[in-house]
Amino acid sequence: MFNEEMRSEQPIRWAMVGGGRGSQIGYAHRSSATRDGHFTLVAGAFDIDAERCRDFGTNLGLNPERCYADYQTMFAEEAKREDGIQAVSIATPNSTHYAISKAALESGLHVVCEKPVTFTVAEAEDLKRIAQEHGRIFGVMYGYTGFQMVHQAREMIQRGDIGKVRVISMQFAHGFHSEEVEKDNPGAKWRMNPEVSGPTYVLGDIGTHAFYMAQLMTGLDVERLCCTRQSFIASRAPLEDNAHVMMQFSNGAVGTLWASGVNAGSMHQQKIRIVGEKASIEWWDERPNQLSFEVQGEPARVLERGMGYLHNDDSAVSSDRIGGGHAEGFFESWANLYSRFGTVMKAANRDDQATVAATWFPGIDAGIEGVRLLERCVESADNDAQWVKYYE
Amino acid sequence: MFNEEMRSEQPIRWAMVGGGRGSQIGYAHRSSATRDGHFTLVAGAFDIDAERCRDFGTNLGLNPERCYADYQTMFAEEAKREDGIQAVSIATPNSTHYAISKAALESGLHVVCEKPVTFTVAEAEDLKRIAQEHGRIFGVMYGYTGFQMVHQAREMIQRGDIGKVRVISMQFAHGFHSEEVEKDNPGAKWRMNPEVSGPTYVLGDIGTHAFYMAQLMTGLDVERLCCTRQSFIASRAPLEDNAHVMMQFSNGAVGTLWASGVNAGSMHQQKIRIVGEKASIEWWDERPNQLSFEVQGEPARVLERGMGYLHNDDSAVSSDRIGGGHAEGFFESWANLYSRFGTVMKAANRDDQATVAATWFPGIDAGIEGVRLLERCVESADNDAQWVKYYE
Amino acid sequence: MFNEEMRSEQPIRWAMVGGGRGSQIGYAHRSSATRDGHFTLVAGAFDIDAERCRDFGTNLGLNPERCYADYQTMFAEEAKREDGIQAVSIATPNSTHYAISKAALESGLHVVCEKPVTFTVAEAEDLKRIAQEHGRIFGVMYGYTGFQMVHQAREMIQRGDIGKVRVISMQFAHGFHSEEVEKDNPGAKWRMNPEVSGPTYVLGDIGTHAFYMAQLMTGLDVERLCCTRQSFIASRAPLEDNAHVMMQFSNGAVGTLWASGVNAGSMHQQKIRIVGEKASIEWWDERPNQLSFEVQGEPARVLERGMGYLHNDDSAVSSDRIGGGHAEGFFESWANLYSRFGTVMKAANRDDQATVAATWFPGIDAGIEGVRLLERCVESADNDAQWVKYYE
Amino acid sequence: MFNEEMRSEQPIRWAMVGGGRGSQIGYAHRSSATRDGHFTLVAGAFDIDAERCRDFGTNLGLNPERCYADYQTMFAEEAKREDGIQAVSIATPNSTHYAISKAALESGLHVVCEKPVTFTVAEAEDLKRIAQEHGRIFGVMYGYTGFQMVHQAREMIQRGDIGKVRVISMQFAHGFHSEEVEKDNPGAKWRMNPEVSGPTYVLGDIGTHAFYMAQLMTGLDVERLCCTRQSFIASRAPLEDNAHVMMQFSNGAVGTLWASGVNAGSMHQQKIRIVGEKASIEWWDERPNQLSFEVQGEPARVLERGMGYLHNDDSAVSSDRIGGGHAEGFFESWANLYSRFGTVMKAANRDDQATVAATWFPGIDAGIEGVRLLERCVESADNDAQWVKYYE
Ligand SMILES: NC(=O)c1ccc[n+]([C@@H]2O[C@H](COP(=O)([O-])OP(=O)(O)OC[C@H]3O[C@@H](n4cnc5c(N)ncnc54)[C@H](O)[C@@H]3O)[C@@H](O)[C@H]2O)c1
Ligand SMILES: NC(=O)c1ccc[n+]([C@@H]2O[C@H](COP(=O)([O-])OP(=O)(O)OC[C@H]3O[C@@H](n4cnc5c(N)ncnc54)[C@H](O)[C@@H]3O)[C@@H](O)[C@H]2O)c1
Ligand SMILES: NC(=O)c1ccc[n+]([C@@H]2O[C@H](COP(=O)([O-])OP(=O)(O)OC[C@H]3O[C@@H](n4cnc5c(N)ncnc54)[C@H](O)[C@@H]3O)[C@@H](O)[C@H]2O)c1
Ligand SMILES: NC(=O)c1ccc[n+]([C@@H]2O[C@H](COP(=O)([O-])OP(=O)(O)OC[C@H]3O[C@@H](n4cnc5c(N)ncnc54)[C@H](O)[C@@H]3O)[C@@H](O)[C@H]2O)c1
Repeated sequence: MFNEEMRSEQPIRWAMVGGGRGSQIGYAHRSSATRDGHFTLVAGAFDIDAERCRDFGTNLGLNPERCYADYQTMFAEEAKREDGIQAVSIATPNSTHYAISKAALESGLHVVCEKPVTFTVAEAEDLKRIAQEHGRIFGVMYGYTGFQMVHQAREMIQRGDIGKVRVISMQFAHGFHSEEVEKDNPGAKWRMNPEVSGPTYVLGDIGTHAFYMAQLMTGLDVERLCCTRQSFIASRAPLEDNAHVMMQFSNGAVGTLWASGVNAGSMHQQKIRIVGEKASIEWWDERPNQLSFEVQGEPARVLERGMGYLHNDDSAVSSDRIGGGHAEGFFESWANLYSRFGTVMKAANRDDQATVAATWFPGIDAGIEGVRLLERCVESADNDAQWVKYYE
Repeated sequence: MFNEEMRSEQPIRWAMVGGGRGSQIGYAHRSSATRDGHFTLVAGAFDIDAERCRDFGTNLGLNPERCYADYQTMFAEEAKREDGIQAVSIATPNSTHYAISKAALESGLHVVCEKPVTFTVAEAEDLKRIAQEHGRIFGVMYGYTGFQMVHQAREMIQRGDIGKVRVISMQFAHGFHSEEVEKDNPGAKWRMNPEVSGPTYVLGDIGTHAFYMAQLMTGLDVERLCCTRQSFIASRAPLEDNAHVMMQFSNGAVGTLWASGVNAGSMHQQKIRIVGEKASIEWWDERPNQLSFEVQGEPARVLERGMGYLHNDDSAVSSDRIGGGHAEGFFESWANLYSRFGTVMKAANRDDQATVAATWFPGIDAGIEGVRLLERCVESADNDAQWVKYYE
Repeated sequence: MFNEEMRSEQPIRWAMVGGGRGSQIGYAHRSSATRDGHFTLVAGAFDIDAERCRDFGTNLGLNPERCYADYQTMFAEEAKREDGIQAVSIATPNSTHYAISKAALESGLHVVCEKPVTFTVAEAEDLKRIAQEHGRIFGVMYGYTGFQMVHQAREMIQRGDIGKVRVISMQFAHGFHSEEVEKDNPGAKWRMNPEVSGPTYVLGDIGTHAFYMAQLMTGLDVERLCCTRQSFIASRAPLEDNAHVMMQFSNGAVGTLWASGVNAGSMHQQKIRIVGEKASIEWWDERPNQLSFEVQGEPARVLERGMGYLHNDDSAVSSDRIGGGHAEGFFESWANLYSRFGTVMKAANRDDQATVAATWFPGIDAGIEGVRLLERCVESADNDAQWVKYYE
Repeated sequence: MFNEEMRSEQPIRWAMVGGGRGSQIGYAHRSSATRDGHFTLVAGAFDIDAERCRDFGTNLGLNPERCYADYQTMFAEEAKREDGIQAVSIATPNSTHYAISKAALESGLHVVCEKPVTFTVAEAEDLKRIAQEHGRIFGVMYGYTGFQMVHQAREMIQRGDIGKVRVISMQFAHGFHSEEVEKDNPGAKWRMNPEVSGPTYVLGDIGTHAFYMAQLMTGLDVERLCCTRQSFIASRAPLEDNAHVMMQFSNGAVGTLWASGVNAGSMHQQKIRIVGEKASIEWWDERPNQLSFEVQGEPARVLERGMGYLHNDDSAVSSDRIGGGHAEGFFESWANLYSRFGTVMKAANRDDQATVAATWFPGIDAGIEGVRLLERCVESADNDAQWVKYYE
């Protein structure tokens, strides 16, 4: 069971870049980072508009002078303060992630960056190098990986409950962009613009989530893949609003990924099904407290969060905030991640590498793999959907 | 959409009585009250054990001298401080609610009290009177009433979407107490002890939730009821671990309530189904983002939180923290309630009665009705399950 | 697995009374009785209208002279024939069941009668006596008791898989009569007329199904009950379109039954949940190939028809007609019952009492219990919903 | 509503080749063909073993001399009889379909043949030509196409309820062959043997069902596809026990097909989802009475068989055998198809081409398309999963 006392040591002084007024995901960051007392918001460059940033930050209770016009100023000014920020979360559109992350790391800050971390693998690997040089933590906001049942799945697979993995079925396919809603919605508009969004839309925006979940659960590497992508709303070209990927994994397993914004009528449909020799495991983000466990030849089982029959280690259980039967949700997953980020940042601060190494969190390697998926998908899709090798 | 800026005015200085280390519901209070910046925890009499209280509160970051040995001391000492507490949440076993609430109100504090608020209707009405005399807010922690889809249901019923209500089916029936788990579990043990729990176990512990949900949705009054209760684990007698109630409502509707701790294998099963002349509405606490809406002669519909087709007023929509498709859960419901408590407490502080009156929250009247249900159920059950009038 | 060869011995010469053109349930009888070759339709008094009966029967391929104007004539004329009928199914409105059944038995015919078999327990017991005197089989068409998963449930309960039964939750509550549809629907109209329907509407029409299912599964006897019934469509009074019953069973278990025709928007909702000390079992007639098995403290399981882990005896498995994963339905349940009726009738014909005794089928005792339920419910409901003893 | 009178004209004299004792699908044919009186079983060459054929057929009530040692004899002998067979159903392993079908047509018989109809498109087209020359009906047993909700989906799509089709998601993926069960199961064994099964296992055995369902619903043509197949149980090579296909359709839609026998723990999982510009439709063979209809921006709806809001034409409604809320299943779907086969065969017998043309049934064209899918999948899969044109 979650222990609020353990998590209440001195909070990390924390800022955000992006996530300003009206943004889609800013509140999720603030609400989750501060939830367990690991982080305290003390500064921000929340907005592309300096005035709105100041107004917004002030309303959130910040010192107006710590509401900055841009991230460069923030990093510079905060570095001068005794009580300057120690970590920053980056929740701006994709095109800016690389530069902001680089600047943050070089200013000695720990970073939590939104996905996709960069446009290219080379950039992402660059960030990895810089983070290492500065001894800073680099977390990537794969927000669904904080769910306890996802870790339960991972552990069951890793201890052999389903046998060798054969088929991986990944899906994140909603219908909210079935029509050209971006005309009136700036938060959607940039996602369709390759200069801001990067080489993909749905693949990067949501496909990377499902892909990383499966990687986390199975630990398998892709060997080659074949991708086809479409712009059903023509104005979205060259970016896709629907994509299908077929994958072959190094152990002989095969996989499919469906990412879509035009799956009309569907709410989310992030579903991950891992089929093994003996059993399958399925997790669905709209029923995140449950895990379907289907052993061939036995009645299907539904595992529930908060129950004694779950694996009793840190990842699956210690983040349990309330008993089984109660619905935990998206925000608990995020808070669990920020709790992990806080734990490793504090450990890094006291140079406790053992704790950093022992604590799972979605880091820059996870970010790199997400970007690699996008590079390969584009390479395949734009080459008439031919198969491409995953690693060079 | 939830607006974190609006909710970030100066927080209320807040304390808890009960909810200490290892308690079941203490974390839920703290996590929810502080979530939106309405409340800041500054003091506590968290525990029956003074030493543990101090250790616990200190670990939470409190000033040790504001970790009190008992609530009397806390109310007295805090009243002397400039920066003393303004509100208190009471999360102790049931037997203490009346005395602590009374003392709090008389010390000029706003109160959030756990359910069931008291052992008797007379006591609950007394609290109502005292709260009025002191002009203090009295909130009752019916924690499921913060879910948006519950308010969506309420509004649909009230605008006539299902027609006149005919049948109300209420259920909160889990299986966690199928065996005599209280032997090793102090949090369960007191619930079976009439001196601490009051005249009922499952009826008060969970039945009141489902009953109040239905009252909230329909606004109907019970006319008479008939209750049968059992102690399937004999050592629990005279308290029941299972109860069934049949009710007749003033408008001619009928209802049933099933409260159970021995519904083996069931996780929660808080389900409320309201059947009207034209349609039915069903809500289930394990899938709280959905509402089933079944119009006779039409395909059944599933309404989803966060969608544009929902009623667009305050209750149903402004508490939306993230778009549809994402799972909100138990803690958002609680945070929504604390947000409402904060809003009305602040309004009361500035003597803004209009806001208090216009803002729905579960108050002492809701608390009184919950206790009345228990009184009547016991009266019926202990009189060979005869029908009893609901109001005298 | 079902063996069509075993079931294809010489069919029983069979007739129907009722179930004529446009009737609700006539096709189900014919389709199921002839499905496995146990019965062959050779005569009928299908209709209250002699002309329509002849036209209908002829269209079905019958010899016109064996399409009779009334059952009296049919029984008399068929008795004279070498190849006369050996069995009859009675699918007329309730008021006629007693007289027709009596006449059939006295003519030496085996009988399958629709439920409720009679208006009174005394009549039903009379039929039992007559059937015994004439050594004839009397089957009652509790059509859901042919489902394999119902027998799986019964056997699991009887071998102790759920422990001692504590709570029985019975429900058959559809919404098709939410409005006064009987105005234009003769098949619904007679159901609301006490002279034809008997002392109840929904209790007898559908409540008896759910009640008998629970009796079959648990084998428990009711000790006392309390019933409240309503006529939400006022013109239906004195018959009810909604009823709730609370029951106490001889072993200390408690139960509830909800029968309704005004559960707006609901399709069927015949659900039976049996809660035991260790686990619960739930069956739902809209997903009849599944059985929910929920052991407290373990992941919930879904058992599926056709799987090797089911009990391997006659009742649960031999009626399996196609492997698991395929949807069997209502008609297989009925055909399974007719298969059982055929088996015992043929056994009775050759005076093989051992087979009759060893073969489960819903017989006159089941019919008597159904009528007793109705008598007691009416006694309670019409006496201000007071508790009444079940057996005198 | 289904009208048993209309369907009871003089039955067609009918035989089976294959489907003998212990076969998987023989009973389904017999039970469905005779269900509505369209067909009467009078002869058979049921088995590869002449003695067992005779014993089996006799037990079914056939004249022993009409239980033939092989189909050649049967066709020859029956042709000599006044009361000889008029139609034959072929339920033998795949390798024999072509020769038996050809012989049957050339003997002047109507044919119902199991899928896949042949090993090659050329053979299937040959059968089409022969059937036309002899003026005989050729039905293919796509057994799921008799479900009413499948036709409801087809009509909704065709009248534009979902808008232009964008994505087609097809799946038939069970787990029954996760282990090498064929070692002890002859019915499974031949399916893994290319000489008997043909060029594929799961693609032909089950993939063709899901593919044809989607074709039926949407009417779209495949333009090109890319397939990868695996033999997770190595001894099954070269035949696959798992396959994924990506497809591009002529109207710009894309599709995926997953066929598997190693989807551990899954019962059937034949799911067809058709995503359009405005809405999606989903049908699942384990809940065949329901259809999910999800309009973007509206609450998801579940349509139910037997309801007045369904399309009121022949295909969707006239095959309704019992009101909504009751579970129809697999056997009703098959009986509906045999009812259609009977209707067109009788029409063909009286040279009523208008009725033949106006009555939908799965015919040889459907069979050809199924085989074409297999040819193309193999061509792609065995060429390193490259894309291949669908039509030459
Ligand atoms: N992890 C998840 O589940 C999840 C969910 C949604 C979005 N995201 C990611 O979060 C990021 C932001 O997405 P969003 O939907 O919130 O976008 P948004 O358009 O809604 O908000 C972007 C915010 O960033 C600010 N901004 C833009 N450029 C800036 C700059 N140079 N400096 C400072 N602020 C700047 C904008 O003013 C705005 O407040 C994206 O990378 C997106 O992929 C992740
Ligand atoms: N709203 C809900 O959903 C919900 C859920 C659980 C519990 N509850 C209610 O909350 C209350 C507490 O339940 P719990 O399960 O957390 O109980 P618990 O036994 O787990 O915890 C009770 C806490 O109160 C402390 N305490 C006891 N007496 C005290 C006193 N006189 N002064 C100060 N502290 C004292 C104990 O030390 C302990 O920390 C009960 O009234 C219960 O009905 C409500
Ligand atoms: N087991 C089940 O699931 C189930 C389902 C539906 C109905 N039923 C029962 O079946 C019986 C018939 O119900 P229904 O809905 O088919 O009724 P219906 O009104 O639709 O049909 C009754 C049929 O009986 C004929 N009939 C009436 N009186 C007759 C007489 N004296 N002699 C011969 N024929 C006569 C009518 O002409 C008509 O054809 C009822 O007892 C009902 O409770 C049972
Ligand atoms: N439409 C469906 O849903 C469905 C389902 C199952 C099988 N099938 C198809 O049905 C066919 C049969 O499959 P099955 O699973 O029943 O096979 P099976 O092996 O269980 O049975 C085959 C039967 O055919 C007989 N047989 C074999 N060769 C014969 C011959 N030359 N002459 C006469 N009889 C012969 C065998 O003795 C046996 O009785 C296959 O083509 C299969 O693809 C279709």
